[in-house]
Amino acid sequence: MANKFDVLGIGNAIVDILIHVDDDFLASENLTKGSMTLVSEQEAASLYNKLGQCIECSGGSAANTIAGLASLGSNTSYIGKIKDDQLGTVFRHDIKSLGSDFNTTPSTEGPATAHCLVLVTPDAERTMCTYLGACVNLTTSDIDKGVTGNADIIYLEGYLWDPEPAKDAFRKAIQIAHAVGNKVALSLSDPFCVDRHHAEFIKLVENDIDILFANEDEIKMLYGTDDVNEAALRVQKYCEIAAITCGAKGCIVVNGAEIGHVQGRNVEKLVDTTGAGDLFAAGFLRGLTTGKSIGECGAIGNLIAGEVITHLGARPDIDLKQFVNENV
Amino acid sequence: MANKFDVLGIGNAIVDILIHVDDDFLASENLTKGSMTLVSEQEAASLYNKLGQCIECSGGSAANTIAGLASLGSNTSYIGKIKDDQLGTVFRHDIKSLGSDFNTTPSTEGPATAHCLVLVTPDAERTMCTYLGACVNLTTSDIDKGVTGNADIIYLEGYLWDPEPAKDAFRKAIQIAHAVGNKVALSLSDPFCVDRHHAEFIKLVENDIDILFANEDEIKMLYGTDDVNEAALRVQKYCEIAAITCGAKGCIVVNGAEIGHVQGRNVEKLVDTTGAGDLFAAGFLRGLTTGKSIGECGAIGNLIAGEVITHLGARPDIDLKQFVNENV
Repeated sequence: MANKFDVLGIGNAIVDILIHVDDDFLASENLTKGSMTLVSEQEAASLYNKLGQCIECSGGSAANTIAGLASLGSNTSYIGKIKDDQLGTVFRHDIKSLGSDFNTTPSTEGPATAHCLVLVTPDAERTMCTYLGACVNLTTSDIDKGVTGNADIIYLEGYLWDPEPAKDAFRKAIQIAHAVGNKVALSLSDPFCVDRHHAEFIKLVENDIDILFANEDEIKMLYGTDDVNEAALRVQKYCEIAAITCGAKGCIVVNGAEIGHVQGRNVEKLVDTTGAGDLFAAGFLRGLTTGKSIGECGAIGNLIAGEVITHLGARPDIDLKQFVNENV
Repeated sequence: MANKFDVLGIGNAIVDILIHVDDDFLASENLTKGSMTLVSEQEAASLYNKLGQCIECSGGSAANTIAGLASLGSNTSYIGKIKDDQLGTVFRHDIKSLGSDFNTTPSTEGPATAHCLVLVTPDAERTMCTYLGACVNLTTSDIDKGVTGNADIIYLEGYLWDPEPAKDAFRKAIQIAHAVGNKVALSLSDPFCVDRHHAEFIKLVENDIDILFANEDEIKMLYGTDDVNEAALRVQKYCEIAAITCGAKGCIVVNGAEIGHVQGRNVEKLVDTTGAGDLFAAGFLRGLTTGKSIGECGAIGNLIAGEVITHLGARPDIDLKQFVNENV
């Protein structure tokens, strides 16, 4: 029997607070450009006080991917922990408004809904400081068996390895999916995240993951190599499918039979790279769940990633289904 | 002795929730394009549930003007009521981050910080539904005499006439300002707002207001005429200065000696007219408080309004001081 959902995403439910800053600001705050740093509530407040006027927009890595898939016309569900507060209301509204299922019970006490300060520099690169807030309360009890066992692919973000209780939720979801023969996809999220959980990630990727998403830096960090082709050869041994994004150059797609390169698209107006990897994964998974070859999947991923970087924020700004119909 | 502040703004403290919609959506919701409708918490929630993914950005009419003035380099203060909740934190952060003073005590119980659903149609017109929330708790006790009596100009929004207790706060602020010989400016805000409070607004404008801001529709509604020039002649009898915005055509500027027209600027990329009137007022008041002629004030107003309509949201997206230096 067919599953109810094409893809279920599980991740940290976060509202982004976005602002343009210059490079000097990153330097003065000792922030590494392009990275995601975990910060305490106090550190987040202190940094926020130094920022000018921001805009707020729902984010969260896997949630961005699910938003993209929903906009592409896929049947999606999402599991992530918000609190029953105003930012939680914003997060829930936004993901459901695109048609995605989202029924994780919000926490009623403890930390507020998570937020991420997204600092966008003039080169359109984003540097993120995340206060995990309510995300630390995601536990195995949030992994609904009926939903988790009912998706062709479950998609997990590496960031979910940061809040300790979420690891068990992560493992439970993998067990449920594999027990019914469904696929498990993982995004490595961030080279620093890979570095933080290096041994566990190696074990995870090589034992439990069917479909791997990574960018060049992340996969090089995972395998301790400077050669992305070497990393691709290694991942080919363990994962059924892998996609390695290489920025403007496009992506490397991997399955048991081949390792190919899919050329990137020219983007005229690069504004903000936030969500590029997340929306690449949305496009790739849309291809995969509609029977496309991995080369075609990579091309749709490149196309969708190319849309999200033309505007501020990590969620699609247009109807992606129509966008793909017009451009593929 | 010189006043501490160039301009003090008093208004409804609101966070905007912005989204693109089509004309059919406005029709299906019986919303009049270009208007501001007051809605209950339940009506706001019901409408929000019908909207797709939004972005959030601080708003509020007088607050937008103060944000613009702060970005232009003026010394500003703001009085408006938020609650001590997440949207309140966003509002406070944003206005203070631009350098404005803002010390109104947030409410700790009662309705949440106000929000406004801003529906932007393809013609870039905005239609607004406002839930006043905590704004209904602004009272005379929030009108700090030390601040209110210490600004060359106090700037009031007509919308402040909607929450009942704010009317007394409004009147108290006028008394304090006039007692020390400072000027009182008013924006008529919205033709429907003028219609709601017609008799009171006539009395207010003709007895208490030194500087009036209105658009064509608002001033025509105020004076029950179809002829904007007739309205200009009438307002000239009562207000020291008036500025009537006429959309892309520019503005009509009025003082005791003259009634002039200042040509609008061509705007290449019209995206969202939210805040056009508010930012016009910011530019005009910047001119006025730096000794410019009313024609020059109108030109700066047109320039600043022309910036805010090139992007989503009613707050300046760039450093307006630098923008004016480069364009005047």
